[in-house]
Amino acid sequence: MTTVNKTTHPFDKTQLEALLSRRFFYAPAFEIYGGVAGLYDYGPPGSALQANIISEWRKHFIVEESMLELDTTIMTPAPVFETSGHVARFADWMVKDTKTGDVLRADHLVKNVLSARLADDNEVRLGTQQPLDPAAAKKKKKDKTPPKVALDPAVAKEYEVILAQLDNYSGPELGELCKKYNIRNPDTDNEVGEPQQFNLMFASSIGPTGQHPGFLRPETAQGHFLNFSRLLDFNNGRVPFASAQIGRSFRNEISPRAGLLRVREFTMAEIEHYVDPEDKSHVRFKEVRDVILVLLDRHVQASGRTEVVDMSVGEAVDKGIIANETLGYFMARIYQFLLKIGINRSRLRFRQHMSNEMAHYATDCWDAEIENSTGWTECVGCADRAAYDLTVHSKKTGHPLVVRQYLKEPIVTEKLVGDLNKKLVGKSFKQDAGGLTKHIECLDEPALLKLKEGLSKGNVKIETSEGKTFELSPEFLTIEKKTFKQNIREYTPNVIEPSFGLGRILYTLLEHNFWSREQDKERGVLSLPAVVAPTKVLIVPLSSREEFDPIVAEISAKLRRAGVFSRVDDSNVSIGRRYARNDELGTPYGITVDFASVQNRTVTLRERDTMDQRIGSMDEVIAAVTDLVEGTIEWPEACQKLPAYDGVQAVD
Amino acid sequence: MTTVNKTTHPFDKTQLEALLSRRFFYAPAFEIYGGVAGLYDYGPPGSALQANIISEWRKHFIVEESMLELDTTIMTPAPVFETSGHVARFADWMVKDTKTGDVLRADHLVKNVLSARLADDNEVRLGTQQPLDPAAAKKKKKDKTPPKVALDPAVAKEYEVILAQLDNYSGPELGELCKKYNIRNPDTDNEVGEPQQFNLMFASSIGPTGQHPGFLRPETAQGHFLNFSRLLDFNNGRVPFASAQIGRSFRNEISPRAGLLRVREFTMAEIEHYVDPEDKSHVRFKEVRDVILVLLDRHVQASGRTEVVDMSVGEAVDKGIIANETLGYFMARIYQFLLKIGINRSRLRFRQHMSNEMAHYATDCWDAEIENSTGWTECVGCADRAAYDLTVHSKKTGHPLVVRQYLKEPIVTEKLVGDLNKKLVGKSFKQDAGGLTKHIECLDEPALLKLKEGLSKGNVKIETSEGKTFELSPEFLTIEKKTFKQNIREYTPNVIEPSFGLGRILYTLLEHNFWSREQDKERGVLSLPAVVAPTKVLIVPLSSREEFDPIVAEISAKLRRAGVFSRVDDSNVSIGRRYARNDELGTPYGITVDFASVQNRTVTLRERDTMDQRIGSMDEVIAAVTDLVEGTIEWPEACQKLPAYDGVQAVD
Repeated sequence: MTTVNKTTHPFDKTQLEALLSRRFFYAPAFEIYGGVAGLYDYGPPGSALQANIISEWRKHFIVEESMLELDTTIMTPAPVFETSGHVARFADWMVKDTKTGDVLRADHLVKNVLSARLADDNEVRLGTQQPLDPAAAKKKKKDKTPPKVALDPAVAKEYEVILAQLDNYSGPELGELCKKYNIRNPDTDNEVGEPQQFNLMFASSIGPTGQHPGFLRPETAQGHFLNFSRLLDFNNGRVPFASAQIGRSFRNEISPRAGLLRVREFTMAEIEHYVDPEDKSHVRFKEVRDVILVLLDRHVQASGRTEVVDMSVGEAVDKGIIANETLGYFMARIYQFLLKIGINRSRLRFRQHMSNEMAHYATDCWDAEIENSTGWTECVGCADRAAYDLTVHSKKTGHPLVVRQYLKEPIVTEKLVGDLNKKLVGKSFKQDAGGLTKHIECLDEPALLKLKEGLSKGNVKIETSEGKTFELSPEFLTIEKKTFKQNIREYTPNVIEPSFGLGRILYTLLEHNFWSREQDKERGVLSLPAVVAPTKVLIVPLSSREEFDPIVAEISAKLRRAGVFSRVDDSNVSIGRRYARNDELGTPYGITVDFASVQNRTVTLRERDTMDQRIGSMDEVIAAVTDLVEGTIEWPEACQKLPAYDGVQAVD
Repeated sequence: MTTVNKTTHPFDKTQLEALLSRRFFYAPAFEIYGGVAGLYDYGPPGSALQANIISEWRKHFIVEESMLELDTTIMTPAPVFETSGHVARFADWMVKDTKTGDVLRADHLVKNVLSARLADDNEVRLGTQQPLDPAAAKKKKKDKTPPKVALDPAVAKEYEVILAQLDNYSGPELGELCKKYNIRNPDTDNEVGEPQQFNLMFASSIGPTGQHPGFLRPETAQGHFLNFSRLLDFNNGRVPFASAQIGRSFRNEISPRAGLLRVREFTMAEIEHYVDPEDKSHVRFKEVRDVILVLLDRHVQASGRTEVVDMSVGEAVDKGIIANETLGYFMARIYQFLLKIGINRSRLRFRQHMSNEMAHYATDCWDAEIENSTGWTECVGCADRAAYDLTVHSKKTGHPLVVRQYLKEPIVTEKLVGDLNKKLVGKSFKQDAGGLTKHIECLDEPALLKLKEGLSKGNVKIETSEGKTFELSPEFLTIEKKTFKQNIREYTPNVIEPSFGLGRILYTLLEHNFWSREQDKERGVLSLPAVVAPTKVLIVPLSSREEFDPIVAEISAKLRRAGVFSRVDDSNVSIGRRYARNDELGTPYGITVDFASVQNRTVTLRERDTMDQRIGSMDEVIAAVTDLVEGTIEWPEACQKLPAYDGVQAVD
């Protein structure tokens, strides 16, 4: 990786957002129609960045571990989500403004209002609040904005504890908080009503007569689970294995306002790793045992605090903080992936879900949270869904979703069994014989023992659940211990699920890699690692003179053959402006074609972050840039091969 | 490409479908819930095949021509599709069974019934109809199936003409056909009602209060058009250029029954190429001028025939059969792409749409149709959408979707202009001056000429549209010719749209490459080209002995480094069965690791279609297979480097 020479002036979100819009990384969808909250389109650099993140994800997870990739449908008939629990429980709590009817998400309302009060308190205490000039004070009065006030220290402490545990509150509890702390709609200062549940799935119906109600999937996971038998068969019946899917999902968010961090349509990448519930070890755990993660566990949060600890995955699993090896293995692999694509290590932590916060299907869950200008954001969930989904679908459909394990050593068990004399029973009880047989089959060991004792003394009376009574002599029924050999163990596997929100990762990646140069603060740079950069190499002819065309074409063709994605910029602006545009696009390298290229077949190579320029023969530079992009060498090594360029034409 | 040694026995669709299900290429979605017509999930080999087709598509179109890739949302607010015409016109005609209420697509009903009658007629005429044995005759009577009858030759001719032009019939016309030819629901023999339009878009609503009605996009195209200004800006204002998008679209088909060929959710790849409406030439047309295409134009179809002609793209454009160079260029590029991924050249044709058949937005359209067991199927559409979409969206939103072309030579025009003496006019007419000024500005040349003539004789009287009259002396108004220079030409570009249905291409590709060996008809082979094959190389250790493990690991790692996707099959079945499984999966090469590998580091290389086996050192074989997969050598060349293997253990 190249050394980044970032300046340290404060992050300027407005400047980043202007860059992302100007260079069409993404934009509000249907912008010319006024847009719709929570829907965004990715333009060429955003699409390429996303495609590169996906490509690296495929290599890091699917190829590396021979996962079975799937592509299942988005449109899903209602019964599937009725069974999975999403129809009943995949919901957020919303409150309505009692006067305007505006809808707000209840937990976001509490968070925003209490955070704002704490911030005001802090300002007043530190005296950083600016005294109002008379005009502003008048305006303020007209606005009816309440003045900033200091809080009673005990109340401030209460707010902090509430915020640390916010994800753990139920809907009614959020309603109580609103009443107790007089939390109102900040846009109107009106009261809000009781929290109501709002299901986040988009509904539609399938077929010309609307006969099949359906939903757009809110996660890709159910598509994996429903195909479990086919996947297991494809894997020759062996467990553990994983399926993986990259695809679009939909959540009808109540009032999305946070750009790419909370959207109604998004691309996910999900892994469902199936394991034996009695053995959640992972064969490659030793490879990640020493990886140090930043952890925020549920106990710390439950006590109203947010301190994190640095701990190796091995230690966390040994201490039972992370529930098992497989969960720990994937947390480490997630961490490695996020660093590889350019997430800042110091702004990444794993937060464990509190008990009320957990999705209805999960037994343990850790979120990889990435810090950004809005706070800490969940970007990857890593949940142990146990056997929940496979069990409920199997029960509902009658289709067994189980693993049949052939045992090398059969399990031998002894069991007390009641053996009826069928002939005699049939003759004596005729049409009632079946009921009796069933009754005997269902008796447990103590009941059988009692019966055996009775029979040893003579006749016994038996009453079935249907109310029929039978009198049996010892001839009718023998009760004995029998030996059973079990060659096959049948079990429902547990599922460990790492689930990635790619849009959130993409946005935090852009924030972490954005800066501007000390000498020109207006000019943004995106220091994206080459592995994800939308374009790897910019080819820049000095001017539009025709003699440069064949050289530009040759470099393009050679880079294409080497698998390095390049673009030519022969637009009619200065080289400096073209480089500036590509610093904004995150293009790590630039090759300049000038008159020396025509005469000597030399070109210059520019590195984005340092603006360093080197010179070499066309083939030397192509070889160096290929190695740089593939990550086999870093910039200092390239500099050893290529001398510094001190020419004048390629001015930044 | 390797030489395929296919046997020529008839295509067995049942056998192919069994293979595709057994190997989980794809399966009905929600199968364990009974499935939903028209929704399919892709399993591991199907997903990989699709991903490889997409990857090749990206290279062939996007990278090759530096297209601007997009990723826009599926969920779309209703106003967009109201403007685009989809709400009013994106519909099929359906008819209802008058007794059961079953819904049928009208054109499919007519096609199926008339085709069946022609087939019966043919059977009866050729005497190939089997005489019914008494039992069958009795059953037949009970079934109420009408007996097969010969048709009057004139009627048979009418049927043929109708079928050739079927796509050209309107809904009411289809209704008349049903009455005239007594076309009934073949499942029930009931009459059907009048055709009604059924909109194919899935509806939903966005937001917690259902305030925004929305649709799932039926094509990705609108997402391109709405972003046109941003795309043009990204391309530095230059035209022509193209945007491209690969993504999911949805059509609520009336009664899908044709597997992957007619589905309700599908992945598309669409290109929107923006051109100057006055210049639809293409800079790379010369590269494809000599490509020979099979064409079925609209005139041939309109005369009730289906004969095709072989013609070079150049000739077809010269003769005006294909409307312009850009359309022709893309048809040739589509043809090249389809052959590259393995579509059979002799089962591919381009059919031009007839006038009533064309989508509401198109001015010319050619479908690449691929023949398969159900007939000819549209797999790629190549339409000239003219300026339709950009114009309607621009008009609706007031946002200009135009190109501003800076002219090197300004266009100079002379125009008669009326010049009012503002001072005098203001003084004389006060508040009425504005109305007079507007009136003069709007006069056309003849009116100005007449006025000029009047003024040359003295005062003139003018009456405005508001009914005010003015008397003007020559001091008030001068009328003269003036010269205007126009430096910018503003125009709405036209759009050429190649649109690919990837699922249809994938399915026809599977049909075209499926066969079975003469010596073992039960055993299917999928001769997929290496470029799209789900797995390129199968690594097969002779047995599960541990000494093979390091060699298997070494080969895997080396292939991964060479970018060749391989899988290990160390399952506990014979090598022959493992190869058979991979013939079904379309894996082109197999590397076998045996005892010689441990002793001499040699391995054998097996080619799927010929079952030919070669031997060489591990590195020689890896090098050869890498070249084969990359397409730089073909099998005969590999055979020159690697001697034939005559060992015994790797028996097929």
